[in-house]
Amino acid sequence: MYDDLRKQCFELNMRLAASGLVKQTFGNVSVADRERGVMAIKPSGVPYSGLKVEDIPVLSIADGRVRVGKFRPSSDTKTHLVLYRAYPQIGGIVHTHSTFATSWAQAARDVPLYGTTHADCMHVPIPCTDFMEDAKIEGDYEVETGHQIVQIFSRRQLDPGEVQMVLVAGHGPFAWGKTGGSALEHAELLEELCKMAFLTEQLRPDAPPLKDALVKKHYLRKHGPGAYYGQKR
Amino acid sequence: MYDDLRKQCFELNMRLAASGLVKQTFGNVSVADRERGVMAIKPSGVPYSGLKVEDIPVLSIADGRVRVGKFRPSSDTKTHLVLYRAYPQIGGIVHTHSTFATSWAQAARDVPLYGTTHADCMHVPIPCTDFMEDAKIEGDYEVETGHQIVQIFSRRQLDPGEVQMVLVAGHGPFAWGKTGGSALEHAELLEELCKMAFLTEQLRPDAPPLKDALVKKHYLRKHGPGAYYGQKR
Amino acid sequence: MYDDLRKQCFELNMRLAASGLVKQTFGNVSVADRERGVMAIKPSGVPYSGLKVEDIPVLSIADGRVRVGKFRPSSDTKTHLVLYRAYPQIGGIVHTHSTFATSWAQAARDVPLYGTTHADCMHVPIPCTDFMEDAKIEGDYEVETGHQIVQIFSRRQLDPGEVQMVLVAGHGPFAWGKTGGSALEHAELLEELCKMAFLTEQLRPDAPPLKDALVKKHYLRKHGPGAYYGQKR
Amino acid sequence: MYDDLRKQCFELNMRLAASGLVKQTFGNVSVADRERGVMAIKPSGVPYSGLKVEDIPVLSIADGRVRVGKFRPSSDTKTHLVLYRAYPQIGGIVHTHSTFATSWAQAARDVPLYGTTHADCMHVPIPCTDFMEDAKIEGDYEVETGHQIVQIFSRRQLDPGEVQMVLVAGHGPFAWGKTGGSALEHAELLEELCKMAFLTEQLRPDAPPLKDALVKKHYLRKHGPGAYYGQKR
Repeated sequence: MYDDLRKQCFELNMRLAASGLVKQTFGNVSVADRERGVMAIKPSGVPYSGLKVEDIPVLSIADGRVRVGKFRPSSDTKTHLVLYRAYPQIGGIVHTHSTFATSWAQAARDVPLYGTTHADCMHVPIPCTDFMEDAKIEGDYEVETGHQIVQIFSRRQLDPGEVQMVLVAGHGPFAWGKTGGSALEHAELLEELCKMAFLTEQLRPDAPPLKDALVKKHYLRKHGPGAYYGQKR
Repeated sequence: MYDDLRKQCFELNMRLAASGLVKQTFGNVSVADRERGVMAIKPSGVPYSGLKVEDIPVLSIADGRVRVGKFRPSSDTKTHLVLYRAYPQIGGIVHTHSTFATSWAQAARDVPLYGTTHADCMHVPIPCTDFMEDAKIEGDYEVETGHQIVQIFSRRQLDPGEVQMVLVAGHGPFAWGKTGGSALEHAELLEELCKMAFLTEQLRPDAPPLKDALVKKHYLRKHGPGAYYGQKR
Repeated sequence: MYDDLRKQCFELNMRLAASGLVKQTFGNVSVADRERGVMAIKPSGVPYSGLKVEDIPVLSIADGRVRVGKFRPSSDTKTHLVLYRAYPQIGGIVHTHSTFATSWAQAARDVPLYGTTHADCMHVPIPCTDFMEDAKIEGDYEVETGHQIVQIFSRRQLDPGEVQMVLVAGHGPFAWGKTGGSALEHAELLEELCKMAFLTEQLRPDAPPLKDALVKKHYLRKHGPGAYYGQKR
Repeated sequence: MYDDLRKQCFELNMRLAASGLVKQTFGNVSVADRERGVMAIKPSGVPYSGLKVEDIPVLSIADGRVRVGKFRPSSDTKTHLVLYRAYPQIGGIVHTHSTFATSWAQAARDVPLYGTTHADCMHVPIPCTDFMEDAKIEGDYEVETGHQIVQIFSRRQLDPGEVQMVLVAGHGPFAWGKTGGSALEHAELLEELCKMAFLTEQLRPDAPPLKDALVKKHYLRKHGPGAYYGQKR
């Protein structure tokens, strides 16, 4: 039961560990099975080196209860659940403390859109949430982390099917996608965009954002009905 | 037919993937066969991990039509074609989004000539194009990208046989050479020159460009009739 | 005699060498056996590539005399001894010259607490000692290095069971833990925290420290009676 | 004839290639046999990937003539010869264009002594030569490069047996040692010192140099009659 989902989750967590985006146990991947209404996620605090398929817990997305697995799920589980509930188009979520993305989150800054690498992926700056209010921190913290993300997307009218990455102020990045594999690709891309935006500002402190026509061109080259990047499906 | 050319193109793309200069599918290598008037190039959006020799399309340089191959060629194909047509001495082109070179392109700056590593390769700053006008972006964008490159070379009277790398403002680098192998070497060197120029400015914001006599000495040590670097041919 | 302790010390030193935290012979790990009152430590100046289990010296923590082993212990041995004597809860110590941590030590600065990665580990800035007075440098230098550490912890009323890493001004980092393995994890984490704090300041020179409520939440999520990170023991 | 020397030179050049200090063909190692008055050095412009023991040329230190080998020696050969002639205590020389050291050379700055990692190796800043005068550049350039190094050592009264690394302004680093192996270690250490000094200045633009008592203590811990680092010989 859920063997495929757990195996997929295990393999994505091992790919995450190999990607260089996580140190020690600072990161996790979840994948959802929407038909069955469940998600599989890394168990909390278990080193990647000893992780096994049968360690992966599976939870109900609706009520958050563990359906299968002896291990406690990631301490960030409630944040994943909020996102899966709010955004039905998401099939996978990746959380890391990757170096450059976390540093932007610590600086509590949106990542400006400086180049076409960024525009190939999305047409706005990478959003950074506000810092959470104390009452929320002392309340149901991981749920509120999810709410911080949902709120910034709502306030800025961002489509989570188009913008698939976010920084949580003072904490670090979350990325997602239609599948666990695309979520992982977005996490990798996020780190690279954060590194290049950092360098761009060092090279030219007054660097302007990329001009609108280039943003639109590159975004629509890869996304939407007129896209011509990649192979026809 | 074209088996050798496709194999060569495949191997150079795999070397590019292993070089650390590209993340995911952000990059491509093409190689030309001038006698037959064709070029081979990476197919668009195909991950390096699954790439095969028979996936490589071959196109006519003159008219851009695909001669062999079922896959759609790289979305940057038209830029490569413009360069092959304008510069008959070129046998290979490499496009990447490598970290430091792309950051200079995002900052829309020429890379100053600060040291002999740069002068060993070329005797002027690495040129960066202007930002493209909106009408051209909305026109035949990839052709216009090639034109931006040709124009900056023309305006500055640069010899594409001597200066074999360029930054496209807001986008990233292109490098070329007599062969695909030398194009790849130039792409690697470009990234390193961009990193060292970045560090030089951080260490000394008013760093002067390398003095002319040193530029000339190092360039001519490696290039031209009086060159004495390397082995006699 | 002490075979297990020496083997453990050897393996941790080899893991340190593989971690990228040390260049050449600039680093060492010690592990203590509190029941027997001894510690094992890397021999001085011996390259990691040729290190063998039987090269590891074992010393009395009480009097510093070598109990087993033909090789001279690390030149930092006396610093380790001071820490083992002052802090009975410590089971392992790691000293490195890792790049970012050493650079903060050279800048003689505490590392500000900018994010939850830091707060997951400790709830205060990473302390940096004062520069040592000349008379102490010319006295029993390695003993005094230990005293510098003990003094900053004492003056700031830090608990060495909670704060398990320190920078020695002008020199570099020491990290410790209940076991040699956890000491090594702290050394790795310290380097990453130093890198992210550096980047945070570059991205935002006036970056504020993380708000208290977030520090407390993240620290107590992992530590103390209410912790809910990881698996139940 | 000279088989051992060529093999040693070959192996050191391959270690240099594996060290990450050189890109493409930008670097070379030479080793001297003082009894026979010869040195072996990398051939000019030959890629490391295809290098073979029998490709290594051996030259007379006194007159610079090739004694053995069909390949043209490194274009930096005359610089190596000047150093071997001026400093009889040297047994090996390494030249690289390693990233951070070259960037300091391009900034034409001495590398300040900010920490004990530096003082463990030497007790003064890493010297950077002046820029060469045009007449010398246009004269016997590689010989003059050696003279620039000898002159800065002479003017500052530095002992090449104590200070075993230098930056040539606008060009890059040279390091040496009693043996080829120690020259390589100095080249690696130089790069790391340059990286940490860069970061130290970024973290604290007014960072003071390390206090004299600490410099002296660390230098003499490893060097001279009172040294107690490492194993007794």
